[in-house]
Amino acid sequence: MNSPTAIAARPAVVNVHAGVHTYDVLIGPGLMAQAADHIEARVGSAKCAIVTDTNVAQRHLAPLEAELKTRNRHVGTKIVAPGEATKSFPALAELCESLLHMGLERGGLVIALGGGVIGDLTGLAASLVRRGVRLVQIPTTLLSQVDSSIGGKTGINTPQGKNLVGTFHQPSLVIADTVLLKTLPAREFRSGYVEAAKFGLLGDAEFFAWLENNWRSVFVFDDKALVRAVEVSVRGKAGVVARDETETGERMLLNLGHTFGHALEAWAGYSQRLLHGEAVAIGICQAYQLSRDLGLIDDAVVQRVTAHLAAVGLPTRVADIPGDSKPDAATLVKIMGQDKKVRDGRLTLILAREIGTAFVSRDVTAEAVQAFLTRSLADEAGRAHI
Amino acid sequence: MNSPTAIAARPAVVNVHAGVHTYDVLIGPGLMAQAADHIEARVGSAKCAIVTDTNVAQRHLAPLEAELKTRNRHVGTKIVAPGEATKSFPALAELCESLLHMGLERGGLVIALGGGVIGDLTGLAASLVRRGVRLVQIPTTLLSQVDSSIGGKTGINTPQGKNLVGTFHQPSLVIADTVLLKTLPAREFRSGYVEAAKFGLLGDAEFFAWLENNWRSVFVFDDKALVRAVEVSVRGKAGVVARDETETGERMLLNLGHTFGHALEAWAGYSQRLLHGEAVAIGICQAYQLSRDLGLIDDAVVQRVTAHLAAVGLPTRVADIPGDSKPDAATLVKIMGQDKKVRDGRLTLILAREIGTAFVSRDVTAEAVQAFLTRSLADEAGRAHI
Repeated sequence: MNSPTAIAARPAVVNVHAGVHTYDVLIGPGLMAQAADHIEARVGSAKCAIVTDTNVAQRHLAPLEAELKTRNRHVGTKIVAPGEATKSFPALAELCESLLHMGLERGGLVIALGGGVIGDLTGLAASLVRRGVRLVQIPTTLLSQVDSSIGGKTGINTPQGKNLVGTFHQPSLVIADTVLLKTLPAREFRSGYVEAAKFGLLGDAEFFAWLENNWRSVFVFDDKALVRAVEVSVRGKAGVVARDETETGERMLLNLGHTFGHALEAWAGYSQRLLHGEAVAIGICQAYQLSRDLGLIDDAVVQRVTAHLAAVGLPTRVADIPGDSKPDAATLVKIMGQDKKVRDGRLTLILAREIGTAFVSRDVTAEAVQAFLTRSLADEAGRAHI
Repeated sequence: MNSPTAIAARPAVVNVHAGVHTYDVLIGPGLMAQAADHIEARVGSAKCAIVTDTNVAQRHLAPLEAELKTRNRHVGTKIVAPGEATKSFPALAELCESLLHMGLERGGLVIALGGGVIGDLTGLAASLVRRGVRLVQIPTTLLSQVDSSIGGKTGINTPQGKNLVGTFHQPSLVIADTVLLKTLPAREFRSGYVEAAKFGLLGDAEFFAWLENNWRSVFVFDDKALVRAVEVSVRGKAGVVARDETETGERMLLNLGHTFGHALEAWAGYSQRLLHGEAVAIGICQAYQLSRDLGLIDDAVVQRVTAHLAAVGLPTRVADIPGDSKPDAATLVKIMGQDKKVRDGRLTLILAREIGTAFVSRDVTAEAVQAFLTRSLADEAGRAHI
């Protein structure tokens, strides 16, 4: 009885309260095998549509689809192309029309089986089809398990920027099977790890210290370490979401490293050249550098944060981005000005007071940010020449 | 001080409570002239984008746009093509991207200036851009003033049917200037009138009787009669929405005549051949006929309802639809099966117990509905040959 399946029978459970909605996040190795049972027990026996991408479909679709068919609860499966380009209006239109064509009813359920792209796109479609059907998230990447599958943010990208079109649509259940993470490419796993480290940095110094000491166990997929990393991150996110569902205040803390990171991602064209988590890793280092330059923290804190992200193999400097071209400060600040978080023309930055304490700042002007980035990029270039 | 403007200074106000949202509907002749003041007083001095169509823009856009520009609160105006075809994914994508391109921020405001198409499309875009910005509805048709601008339903059409993709997004303010109705084509005004009559039929027998006695004053745009017709309808809608924001129960009553009506509209291709309100007028007569056939009401009630709708010049029979082709019962029932209101494969019908009392029924099978429609269409054909 020590098989992964036996462990999965008693998953870790994190309850999320978001506005009037409440739902569970189940975390454990091998949960996929009982996904249909968990859905039936917690959401009911609604008819289900599955949305996934070609990569995930190859590995994880067949058993779930077969199980739902056996129970006469499967109305259809929509398989989309993997990658950020799928978070688009044309893909959204096609998905909504597919779900309607399958005959999904108002009491129906959509299962998002995949990473952040699938979760964001499917969540948006679920909030729109028949003015809202229920949603179950089965995140298959570390990024989506620790962060994007929880909290109800959905979205697609437009020429003006990332996630600028979307809704808040809470899932009815999230099933995070940590076994799925073992088949991820190492680069994608590292990219997701950033968001776990972020939860330590913004609100849980003890968790960050635990990650510093235990990241090797996480990276060799030790079940216990992996479940702990996901569970603590999910609890961190659930706490923030409960206090601020629609991001009018505290939830903005989750954007630690993201204002800088999104600008880098946009500059790199949301491509394989720079994954989201890689951009956020550099962005976190920049947020700590700026906090240091503003006299909020010592350089030792910047070094500690940077050292940990570098230890797991993440980029920490713009100079680490592969390829010859590098962005300049003015370009990055201009991109930031398009960010959803801009209000009354002011940038919203998440700054740090120490490890485990972040805060929302609207006091730093765009000019000051540009001056900081100019210095930071020059420093990097200087070091690169040493 | 007896000018329309003086009257407009003290509009009728209906407060709508929908979930956690509360907002006012202002009704009166000449309100457009003070629209910017009303918005500032009730929603604040946010930056505004206007969305309208080419027809409405010609008549009503310039003063509002000029006023917002004077106050430095105008970020842009998007003018779309008029007509139901604009409620599409491509038009939605273009509108969202336009609003973002204008630089509309998260605290910004979108003003929907137009009829039901503009309100539905703009409301949906407002709920999606930056995961939701505020919305002010300035309905310019009778249909949108008495019904569609209130209650937060937004939507676009897909090949599978009408309004099958949308959200619930409550406006922050609705401004219904009854003077705007005077420039509507007579056919469009009649089509909107159906929804006012519907509020009488489903829940307010006294209002229906008042309409029977006063419809001529409404149709010659008597200010007092027009404001009363709009105000009582809005109060009716506000009451239903307050008790059931997301249409899990009572709100379905607002679909009186709409299950049949939508099927006719879909069959006619959502074209000028049969306007929405015209389809609903026929649908209401069919709902009363079916209620009679089920033994719920006397034929005299059917005759009274039909007589009033016919008196104002509305179609009341499928035979009244212009053109040679007519739908058959099987086709209509098949279209109904695609309706958003289908649950567990059962049609949702709104039936009547008397004038002023409607109820939601899921007891009538699709077979029984088809048998009824077959009889009804045969009756019409019989009468047409007399």
